[in-house]
Amino acid sequence: MYKAKAYSAASATSPLASTTIQRRDTTDRDVQIEILFCGICHSDLHSVRDEWHSIMPTVYPIVPGHEIVGRVTKVGPGVTKFKPGELAAVGCLVDSDHTCPNCKDGLEQLCPNQTLTFNGTDKHQTAPVTYGGYSESIVVDEHFVLRVPTNLNLAGVAPLLCAGITTYSPIRRWGDITRKKVGVVGLGGLGHMGVKFAKAFGAHVVVFTTSPGKKEDALRLGADEVIISTNAKEMQQHAGSFNFILDTIAADHDINAYINMLGRDGNITLVGAPETPLQVSAFALLFGRRSLSGSIIGGIPETQEMLDFCGAHNITADVEVIPIQKVNEAYERMVRSDVKYRFSIDMASLKG
Amino acid sequence: MYKAKAYSAASATSPLASTTIQRRDTTDRDVQIEILFCGICHSDLHSVRDEWHSIMPTVYPIVPGHEIVGRVTKVGPGVTKFKPGELAAVGCLVDSDHTCPNCKDGLEQLCPNQTLTFNGTDKHQTAPVTYGGYSESIVVDEHFVLRVPTNLNLAGVAPLLCAGITTYSPIRRWGDITRKKVGVVGLGGLGHMGVKFAKAFGAHVVVFTTSPGKKEDALRLGADEVIISTNAKEMQQHAGSFNFILDTIAADHDINAYINMLGRDGNITLVGAPETPLQVSAFALLFGRRSLSGSIIGGIPETQEMLDFCGAHNITADVEVIPIQKVNEAYERMVRSDVKYRFSIDMASLKG
Repeated sequence: MYKAKAYSAASATSPLASTTIQRRDTTDRDVQIEILFCGICHSDLHSVRDEWHSIMPTVYPIVPGHEIVGRVTKVGPGVTKFKPGELAAVGCLVDSDHTCPNCKDGLEQLCPNQTLTFNGTDKHQTAPVTYGGYSESIVVDEHFVLRVPTNLNLAGVAPLLCAGITTYSPIRRWGDITRKKVGVVGLGGLGHMGVKFAKAFGAHVVVFTTSPGKKEDALRLGADEVIISTNAKEMQQHAGSFNFILDTIAADHDINAYINMLGRDGNITLVGAPETPLQVSAFALLFGRRSLSGSIIGGIPETQEMLDFCGAHNITADVEVIPIQKVNEAYERMVRSDVKYRFSIDMASLKG
Repeated sequence: MYKAKAYSAASATSPLASTTIQRRDTTDRDVQIEILFCGICHSDLHSVRDEWHSIMPTVYPIVPGHEIVGRVTKVGPGVTKFKPGELAAVGCLVDSDHTCPNCKDGLEQLCPNQTLTFNGTDKHQTAPVTYGGYSESIVVDEHFVLRVPTNLNLAGVAPLLCAGITTYSPIRRWGDITRKKVGVVGLGGLGHMGVKFAKAFGAHVVVFTTSPGKKEDALRLGADEVIISTNAKEMQQHAGSFNFILDTIAADHDINAYINMLGRDGNITLVGAPETPLQVSAFALLFGRRSLSGSIIGGIPETQEMLDFCGAHNITADVEVIPIQKVNEAYERMVRSDVKYRFSIDMASLKG
């Protein structure tokens, strides 16, 4: 075991603060990574504040962070995919059972015995739970380490590991959207990635937002049109015309307004998870044979595919780079949606 | 124009009673049909009692009935599909605009200018609205008249025109369910057809019911297993194991209990439409990438395909044949679910 600098929170009401944690020595198939950038995901904040207590109670201290990009510093003797010096990335998962039907199909995100990158049960028992990416270093089974295209800005790569795959996966799986009308509801960390991917796949992309102030930026990101969702007339004009809608809103909202935007056999996929149940009109689904789906991150093969796609299409997240000392302030700003569109922590700041 | 005997209701609180209506003479492409049997669908009762007032207000008098089977008595000079003496059937639609994208794709049930078989705007202006199948005769554009296999019991064919196509269409479109685990929620007019079709397509069929008394009958109809949905332990044992579920319940119910039954990428399709919004848990959809869909009857080509499939597999609805004089009593029994599984009116009774 070795010591690594990190940022942790001691309780649901404590700020994140500098600490030192234990990391395991590389076992046979482990990759040790020096973390260069770590994105800040809304899940980090939910977990730090124990807001998902009923589903996943937080074990303190917590070291959050699952949008990790860095450089390989050491590999175990059995590692075949990586060499020291190469770029590498880690997302929401660091392990799974490798044997269940989902793992066999490369869908580790659905494995019932998966290990989350932070606040997960650590098979190696290095600590009470796994510690995430707000740290100078991490050690991960090579199966859960992704290759990173060398042509991309690394600060903007970090958020691809959660916000990127979360939006890429449902768009990709829906099928061919070339020249089809695709909606993205909400223009935040997830939504702005949804716009980039839908555009890269050739769709006619329409952003739904409640903020007229976001219109210009939506167009800059690649949207073809912007609908102000509070404008009933504007909404009515587009009713029944969408092939696919990606709904990135985690707050309560009127889902039927968007179901009614779908054309025949259209689908709306949720990637945000409002806490209170969605009020779904059965009639809205019946007329038009529409469907409502959910999607959650992606498996390791699909995450690699997404990163390769980003390399080929020069796609990264739009980030505001911060030193780790500003992480608590960043959380407050994230709650106010005051970020375009993701914070990325420059981990060099941890060494200072 | 000619006169035809029928049963109509004069107001939302009036019983159905004997009357005489006008039918148009056959125009160029019309088929005149002597109605032999007409199924009683729950929609008949909703319309007679104006319970769908906000969506489709009822114009009185109303002659309900859209599960029609009979014999061709006359055809217009331009008719090519039918000859007098042949069997014929009519479902929920008697016309559409023939020109919209849905009509061009044979999905007349989604045409915005469709004409419902009863209480619809009659292009021919024979009466204030279209009159349905509780009548000795009907005249319909040949495009909306279906061919009927000659090997089937006609009383049991009638309900195929609505209950049959409503359940056939989503099962058929979901894809190959051979040896897959398929659930049917509710064992009524729709559910019992869902069991028959899912079984005929080779699925392992599981019926969900609140009534232990229905177990034996579900097995007789072809179900491989029956789950009593109020038994939490039994439900838990099957969690995450279904490929597809057909939900035929029009009353309020806990949809998440069934979403949680779905395995990876599983789908639950609603064919009943509860009036109050469904309370859908986003988490239930996200974990497992599940989807919730709606489906409504089917187009004319698919309805013909369904009837041909029924002929090939010897499938009809289980019906209780009644004379039309018992229709009001049948409505009361239908409200109490006291029918196995559909009433079929023997129209010979109207002549007496």
